[in-house]
Amino acid sequence: MGKVKISKVVMIGAGNLASQLAPAIKKAGFNIVQIYSRTEVSAGRLGKLIGCGFTSIKSEICKDGDIYIFALADDALREFIDGFCLSGKIVVHTSGSLDLALLASLSETYGILYPVQTFSKERKVNFMQIPVCIEASDDITKQILFDFAETFSSEIYFLNSEQRGKLHIAAVFACNFVNHLYTVSSEILSSADLPFDLIRPLIRETANKINDLPPDVAQTGPAVRNDQLVIKRHLDLLSFLPQYKKIYELITEDIISSGEKSR
Amino acid sequence: MGKVKISKVVMIGAGNLASQLAPAIKKAGFNIVQIYSRTEVSAGRLGKLIGCGFTSIKSEICKDGDIYIFALADDALREFIDGFCLSGKIVVHTSGSLDLALLASLSETYGILYPVQTFSKERKVNFMQIPVCIEASDDITKQILFDFAETFSSEIYFLNSEQRGKLHIAAVFACNFVNHLYTVSSEILSSADLPFDLIRPLIRETANKINDLPPDVAQTGPAVRNDQLVIKRHLDLLSFLPQYKKIYELITEDIISSGEKSR
Repeated sequence: MGKVKISKVVMIGAGNLASQLAPAIKKAGFNIVQIYSRTEVSAGRLGKLIGCGFTSIKSEICKDGDIYIFALADDALREFIDGFCLSGKIVVHTSGSLDLALLASLSETYGILYPVQTFSKERKVNFMQIPVCIEASDDITKQILFDFAETFSSEIYFLNSEQRGKLHIAAVFACNFVNHLYTVSSEILSSADLPFDLIRPLIRETANKINDLPPDVAQTGPAVRNDQLVIKRHLDLLSFLPQYKKIYELITEDIISSGEKSR
Repeated sequence: MGKVKISKVVMIGAGNLASQLAPAIKKAGFNIVQIYSRTEVSAGRLGKLIGCGFTSIKSEICKDGDIYIFALADDALREFIDGFCLSGKIVVHTSGSLDLALLASLSETYGILYPVQTFSKERKVNFMQIPVCIEASDDITKQILFDFAETFSSEIYFLNSEQRGKLHIAAVFACNFVNHLYTVSSEILSSADLPFDLIRPLIRETANKINDLPPDVAQTGPAVRNDQLVIKRHLDLLSFLPQYKKIYELITEDIISSGEKSR
């Protein structure tokens, strides 16, 4: 294969990630020729936003793209690939957890562009600041993907599959699980008729603090002090929310035991 | 008791909170007359910073303060109070979890100034933006504490003890437990030779996102999609860190079941 210059982009997916990635790619000067989504409404919404064609019919996916970017949920991607062929094209997926080899049945040249961020349709993000992790079937494709990605992100990393797998788990802890703790917190506040605003400054400072201090040094609160009286009182107060009580017990136990390790 | 005008402040404690609160109170124009800490070094460090007297000897605590602010760890406070008397003074503690009545043995007029924030000596915070929750033995003291606190914070709340207890638990989830997940995340990254910088933008966006979206709406990731293949792969990869695997299982289970509730 000679040196491919990417110009025409086909976006497979119109969900949270695609809704942020497609505008970033367009802004970087590429020609997004088509959006595919399983639902016509989603395909149309993003297609109109970008000003390009769109379809919800697999057989109508445009055949003259240079790169096909799969921004689908993992299970939707596995289902999509089955029986589809894009030989001669560059195909990439954007998943933190799916195998690179999964794409081998689609084309000879394939890779991964995994952006380490949480995406929601409703919220714009600045793609330039988002780390993008690259893997590829071969060195030429890796270089092509690097040249492509550096037009819309200033933070490019080359990872192997094992690293990407662990990074994805780290991201689940630091984002999805953290966000769930915000939800838990918000429910506990509601149960006392208190506004979420009361802890917004705390949430901001907790996230900002680790820019200056390593997280284990930044830790405060009853668990790291091993203050058993407070812990017991909290567990008693949580008895009306048994699942949250279990989370409280487990994380507290882990904070206490990591403190013991570092002493 | 007539209307007390607070002028002279005695700070009991020189830890994370006292190190931030004392400068804020000084900046608001009050006269901090003394810092007490159990250790001479800590008392001296903060006393010199503020430019006031300091002691580590309980019997040498200055007797002509208007207000005595206890910024001690909960267990240290319980121990300190025993046998001590500050009759005629206003005494307050700063704890999210300790009873108001605990101070009744010290003085007739007592209260709580609970700042909802995480404090470390090494990191300056802007006290004006920190919510401060007030409780007091009586309405006059409550008003005095309000007049005092509004000079160094623009976010004053009046809470009852039950609300403060629940707020403290909510703060533990949104701060201490969140911070622990940052630690977990950082350890997982280290195990793959990856820098923590890879997930800093993700941590920032996760915290910022909930300014625009309620946390349950902001949620993304394998658990909220109930993507069992990814979850299983993550649990397999975590088998070398059994405690983190347990945390992963429990929070994932809770995200899945809250998703089911809201559908």
